Amino acid sequence: MKQRVNVVLFNDFELLDVCGPLEMFGRLADVYEIKCFSQTGGLVKASQQVEMQTHPFTGIEHTDILLIPGGMGTRTLVKDNSFLEELKQLAQSATWVLTVCTGSALLARTGILDGYKVTGNKRAFAWTMEQSEKVLWQPKARWQVDGKYYTSSGISAGMDMTLGFLADRHGINVANNIANVTEYVWNRDKDTDLFAYE
Amino acid sequence: MKQRVNVVLFNDFELLDVCGPLEMFGRLADVYEIKCFSQTGGLVKASQQVEMQTHPFTGIEHTDILLIPGGMGTRTLVKDNSFLEELKQLAQSATWVLTVCTGSALLARTGILDGYKVTGNKRAFAWTMEQSEKVLWQPKARWQVDGKYYTSSGISAGMDMTLGFLADRHGINVANNIANVTEYVWNRDKDTDLFAYE
Repeated sequence: MKQRVNVVLFNDFELLDVCGPLEMFGRLADVYEIKCFSQTGGLVKASQQVEMQTHPFTGIEHTDILLIPGGMGTRTLVKDNSFLEELKQLAQSATWVLTVCTGSALLARTGILDGYKVTGNKRAFAWTMEQSEKVLWQPKARWQVDGKYYTSSGISAGMDMTLGFLADRHGINVANNIANVTEYVWNRDKDTDLFAYE
Repeated sequence: MKQRVNVVLFNDFELLDVCGPLEMFGRLADVYEIKCFSQTGGLVKASQQVEMQTHPFTGIEHTDILLIPGGMGTRTLVKDNSFLEELKQLAQSATWVLTVCTGSALLARTGILDGYKVTGNKRAFAWTMEQSEKVLWQPKARWQVDGKYYTSSGISAGMDMTLGFLADRHGINVANNIANVTEYVWNRDKDTDLFAYE
């Protein structure tokens, strides 16, 4: 059976946070089945004005990989307790959880990341850190792995992290091949984010 | 008035071909208005299994920038004369036309690129070149500019080309800033595709 990649969408999500990782997962179509979800289902609009179709959270049977993007929509969702409770349950029941950009801020707000090493968007890092002071925030990482949580820096870093995740699961040759096929210059060093502030 | 970025979608389009460039255009939301179109409108499914909402081609009033992605869907569309005729008219009436990956193969099939310098996906380059022998195919370029046509190499090269397009329109500082904000390591050298065969 294929592994289920379930994507959490919401209005004002950041388009590349979602589509970069999905491009990489989609290259292993025999292994991963991708589906997009939102709290109530239906069309969800990215900050970049395109609309993607989603199923409601209630339609999720099980999750191998939960992908949580960032974007301006997270600024209101960190105050939405009903959303946060559902997100927490989805993350708890997932085998792996991947966040991109301010997706880690959103997930941190649920408390589930307390005690874990986590990174996020460097331009929004002060705001991100405010979401939980018990998270071990990592200011220099391109992406961070701790337990079942993979968290990446801003936007484009989601592609680097996903290739790293796929390398960890399937070996470096598989990840290198996906980077080559997608003609993507993979930033392989997870510990060094070129966009981190000194 | 904002400039209209009209995206041509079809089933089995390549997700990052579309979303990489739109991420970059979306960063200048005061300048560009993004809309997705397909021949008949409605939901269109990417090869990566996500569905995007579109308006029908008949809803296009005018086009400042036409974005044409590639993907496996192009393999059947190059034989679809009704689609090719509509695509040709859209490209003729656009101020600028940007293609990503095998999007240039699709557009070449209409004959509109004959005599122009054009590039495309390097792994599908033999097939791409078959679509018109009168196009001046460029095997080494990351992206190519000739007249109103910007054509890029495979998938991820669409982000590099779009930053190049925005640099040409708004200056290098604007493009560099977008690369920084999206934390994208921009491959700025349009003449050298790292993924080109020797």
